[in-house]
Amino acid sequence: MKISIGPKTMALPTPAWLVGTYDAAGKPNLMTAAWGGVCSSNPPCLTVSLQKPRYSYAAIMERKAYTVSIPSESQADKVDYCGIVSGRDHDKFAKLGWTAVKSELVDAPYVAECPLIVECKVIHILEVGVHTMFVGEIMDVKVEEAGLRDGKPDAAAIKPMIYAPEDRNYYGLGPSLGLAFSIGKGLK
Amino acid sequence: MKISIGPKTMALPTPAWLVGTYDAAGKPNLMTAAWGGVCSSNPPCLTVSLQKPRYSYAAIMERKAYTVSIPSESQADKVDYCGIVSGRDHDKFAKLGWTAVKSELVDAPYVAECPLIVECKVIHILEVGVHTMFVGEIMDVKVEEAGLRDGKPDAAAIKPMIYAPEDRNYYGLGPSLGLAFSIGKGLK
Repeated sequence: MKISIGPKTMALPTPAWLVGTYDAAGKPNLMTAAWGGVCSSNPPCLTVSLQKPRYSYAAIMERKAYTVSIPSESQADKVDYCGIVSGRDHDKFAKLGWTAVKSELVDAPYVAECPLIVECKVIHILEVGVHTMFVGEIMDVKVEEAGLRDGKPDAAAIKPMIYAPEDRNYYGLGPSLGLAFSIGKGLK
Repeated sequence: MKISIGPKTMALPTPAWLVGTYDAAGKPNLMTAAWGGVCSSNPPCLTVSLQKPRYSYAAIMERKAYTVSIPSESQADKVDYCGIVSGRDHDKFAKLGWTAVKSELVDAPYVAECPLIVECKVIHILEVGVHTMFVGEIMDVKVEEAGLRDGKPDAAAIKPMIYAPEDRNYYGLGPSLGLAFSIGKGLK
């Protein structure tokens, strides 16, 4: 039997991403984001949504750029930290001992220590309720060498984090369930 | 060392969702979608992006509604099937032996057999490259009783599927890594 829990921001999986920006003074900053996803194949684009009071909001508005550093499960406590404190009064890179790398393609920094990096140029901004959704065109994807298999990003090696809203838990990636566009063929 | 793989639709995790719609004749249909995510907390909203040639595209445009049935890992082959064939010439519910339940809140059906349901009314439509992004206001979330813990959706019980673009693999959910807004506190 299904139980109605009302209109909540519930969906699974949601990501645990680190949105990288430069503030007005050029200080690199990170914000943990679960509200986002891919939204177009060509040009490849992804969204992240932020509320205006977030320190990263003005940074994205000003430079029309952000990166998404996709962390590995071993970085869970650091990712959570980035969602707890504000870049207004904390230097998160310094605190975590992480290296801010300036993207050569967009005006934003990424985390050298994260296994998967997506560099985005803002091409649309849409107000949706209390959030502002930034649609970023993906200018490049960078993968740590150990996270590649046959030249492609290997999720099992990258070990991304998954966020579960409502129960507010982070999870790791489980076992492969099979290949897409393949395991369903037998049902045709 | 980071390897650049170019501008690709790569992000982790992405979802494996079943978008439910009625076609012009009122036949329920499902489409597998990985391009989507939460985009606002209030009102709660999530996006799904579709290409215009998809059979579900006209259905959403006409009724300004869709559901997201979030499947469990045991349904992976059925989810994949829904991404392989078109509702134009297949009755996917009938083929899979699934039950189409008419939402009482939006003009779209959902899958009774899926553990987590999100019912959406379209409030924004944005063209992004080859995709059309539908922003849906979440009117209700329904959870199978066994997927609740203390009245909240329990991801570990729901066992959602995760899709990995590029290597085109489906994955299950892994172990909990800890509570959000908690495990990072020690780093403050």
